[in-house]
Amino acid sequence: MKITPISGFPEYLPAERIVEQHFLDIIRETFELHGFPSIETRAVEPVDRLLGKGGDADKEIYGVSRLAGDETADAELGLHFDLTVPFARYVLENAGHLAFPFRRHQVQKVWRGERPQEGRYREFTQADIDVVDVGELAPHFEAELPLVMAEVFSRLPIGQMVIQVNNRKIPEGFYLGIGVTDVIGTLRIVDKLDKIGPARVADLLVESGLTREQADQCLALAAIRTEDLSFADRVRELGVSHPVLDEGLDALSRVISSGMANAPGALVADLRIARGLDYYTGTVYETQLVGHEAWGSFCSGGRYDSLASDGKTTYPGVGISIGVSRLLGLLLGHQMLRASRSTPACVLVAVNDEESRPTSTRVATALRARGIPCEVAPKPAKFGKQIRYAERRGIPYVWFPGAGVAADGAGDRPGDQVKDIRSGEQVDADASTWAPPAEDLHPQILRSEA
Amino acid sequence: MKITPISGFPEYLPAERIVEQHFLDIIRETFELHGFPSIETRAVEPVDRLLGKGGDADKEIYGVSRLAGDETADAELGLHFDLTVPFARYVLENAGHLAFPFRRHQVQKVWRGERPQEGRYREFTQADIDVVDVGELAPHFEAELPLVMAEVFSRLPIGQMVIQVNNRKIPEGFYLGIGVTDVIGTLRIVDKLDKIGPARVADLLVESGLTREQADQCLALAAIRTEDLSFADRVRELGVSHPVLDEGLDALSRVISSGMANAPGALVADLRIARGLDYYTGTVYETQLVGHEAWGSFCSGGRYDSLASDGKTTYPGVGISIGVSRLLGLLLGHQMLRASRSTPACVLVAVNDEESRPTSTRVATALRARGIPCEVAPKPAKFGKQIRYAERRGIPYVWFPGAGVAADGAGDRPGDQVKDIRSGEQVDADASTWAPPAEDLHPQILRSEA
Repeated sequence: MKITPISGFPEYLPAERIVEQHFLDIIRETFELHGFPSIETRAVEPVDRLLGKGGDADKEIYGVSRLAGDETADAELGLHFDLTVPFARYVLENAGHLAFPFRRHQVQKVWRGERPQEGRYREFTQADIDVVDVGELAPHFEAELPLVMAEVFSRLPIGQMVIQVNNRKIPEGFYLGIGVTDVIGTLRIVDKLDKIGPARVADLLVESGLTREQADQCLALAAIRTEDLSFADRVRELGVSHPVLDEGLDALSRVISSGMANAPGALVADLRIARGLDYYTGTVYETQLVGHEAWGSFCSGGRYDSLASDGKTTYPGVGISIGVSRLLGLLLGHQMLRASRSTPACVLVAVNDEESRPTSTRVATALRARGIPCEVAPKPAKFGKQIRYAERRGIPYVWFPGAGVAADGAGDRPGDQVKDIRSGEQVDADASTWAPPAEDLHPQILRSEA
Repeated sequence: MKITPISGFPEYLPAERIVEQHFLDIIRETFELHGFPSIETRAVEPVDRLLGKGGDADKEIYGVSRLAGDETADAELGLHFDLTVPFARYVLENAGHLAFPFRRHQVQKVWRGERPQEGRYREFTQADIDVVDVGELAPHFEAELPLVMAEVFSRLPIGQMVIQVNNRKIPEGFYLGIGVTDVIGTLRIVDKLDKIGPARVADLLVESGLTREQADQCLALAAIRTEDLSFADRVRELGVSHPVLDEGLDALSRVISSGMANAPGALVADLRIARGLDYYTGTVYETQLVGHEAWGSFCSGGRYDSLASDGKTTYPGVGISIGVSRLLGLLLGHQMLRASRSTPACVLVAVNDEESRPTSTRVATALRARGIPCEVAPKPAKFGKQIRYAERRGIPYVWFPGAGVAADGAGDRPGDQVKDIRSGEQVDADASTWAPPAEDLHPQILRSEA
């Protein structure tokens, strides 16, 4: 049977997976520091739920059914294409067991039958945080969530990430203020700015019924981007006023001023950001890696007035999601990151001969008891060959049982030695006390600007 | 749309998920201490590969296809039902990039369309370690792998796990030695011992063509179970000899004696264990939780002479797999484990009024900078209500900014206080120096024998 990769389903070699694990560890650790417990949802949802939510009717859903299927009575199932639809269902299903406002993080794979391309996969990992409440959701959560993500990014070995924030009430109020009533239609056209440029957007707006002057005003609004609160003055300079616009400006000012106080430089007000036209109702977020803006957004989200609803109760929420696979795929694909070794093992314990393997195993056990990952050599080959075994995997130390000078007193077993195979330095060592430098204990993630 | 759980697809509440995370953390940490790097494989494999390997033709495979399917040219895909078939494919696909002997661990979900029942799921997590080599695999790996699992179990908050070990060459050589040539057929009947008992097994063996004496000998062999090396003498007392039997006894002696030296009590020789009749060729493992033997095996595996083959090269391997979801489902289902709280947050920082939220956020930031997970209260409610918010989630500490006595000197902001809401004790505290007792920093996993 011929073996070929399946397009859109990436797999990593062990050293790449170490980079991925490092990212996932930092993401989880930061989410937990901010008090977001983890949940996981099943991979499948009923297809009618997948089709009914999430806005885009063209999500390419993977259906799932037993090959030996005989359960015509069962609901048709599909793999989830994001973590928001399953989370909304989980909240409704478990509302009686959850304490609200309910915070959670969720890091799982999702599947989309899209056309694969650079940074676009059919199976990929997302890392989400959301806060959901019953009936009403306090606005300060819209300021809190991007700060959590800013902390994640500051701890990852990547360049500077900038979270661009807008509030949907700003374009909405502004459009109403200049007499444009088709807010969604207008937003949908302005949202094409990155793709087709301002001249073409202006034409499309005029085609849709706006005056040339209204179109120019829409473009002027979308061009405002500030790192501080001056965006509000710049909007007011356009001479438009509307109560919904004021609401939006106040809300965005609260988010940006919290960013300035807690994570200077991490958040900018960018009035072009629209996102998820059908479900976001307040703050919206997108995130770019500085210097790689063309790669698009790696972390997006916003506020929903109705994340979930069971007909009687409505659950508003706010959430942000990191596209982990997209980010990693691009960073690894452009050789911008690598792991210092392809195994967690820090030490290879050499084996003198097969009979003395138990001695080597005892050394390994002593090292592991103090948290030092290690491996016993697979064969009692010549030491040069055992060193090459370590070298090929990037294991920095090789331990030689009995290679040292015998201690004083007759009958004592000779001591051990350990060699740093990078420098060649070999020293006496005792497995009950020796420790590597902290930076060698676990694989390092090394960065190089491509 | 009515919301109902999908049978066989379990989901956890946040507190249960904390128990699962604890298990997965210990499993990964132990695997890494033993030098097993992680890999993950895609969730899908070509259906013909899933059907062709793994032995059981009756694995209930879930097929996967795009609802908007138009790719008739693409291979038919299915969700993997274990991690061995994907690993074997991964080894063949990446052989040129891997260093052999290749060790890896893999912790992922798998899917089987089986009839759901207690401890049997349609979506569940397995945690595997394997070592695979090219052409030949050194036998010491068969002794090493169960020691890794024994260390995992010793660090989990569960009762005693006993790994039962056998070597397939023992029954094979023994059967040949008493003149029984249908080894697989005989093993298949003896394998029913747990289900139908010795009398019925003896009858079936006689029906299959064995003499009553041969049948009794088979049962006598299967009854041997020892914690030390005496199993070999007990086999020899049965008066049977065959070179393959001797090979098997020597191999099993090496595994058990390594267990006695490195993990006393964790391994037993149990000559009844057969497992995976079609593919295991040497050592085989099963694992029982002492006192809950009826729950069956939680950790099984063995040696394959041909884990994978591309026609030219054969890759022998040895592997063991923990059924994480099965184990957790039973322990949680029988209330034998619980988490001390439903959130990672150790501290809730109270909010005096909405205007002073930034003060509370600064406290939280200072605590997080020193690794203390915390959350800022959602509302500036009465303190009693904020304390109840913490209580409901099991958060042990509530922090009150400015509740302390003002420091000396005019204009100083009053200091903070922190309350242990379990004891009610409230003391002065400084966010840049205060730390909880170590056992409160992260949720504890609490055990109760059911």
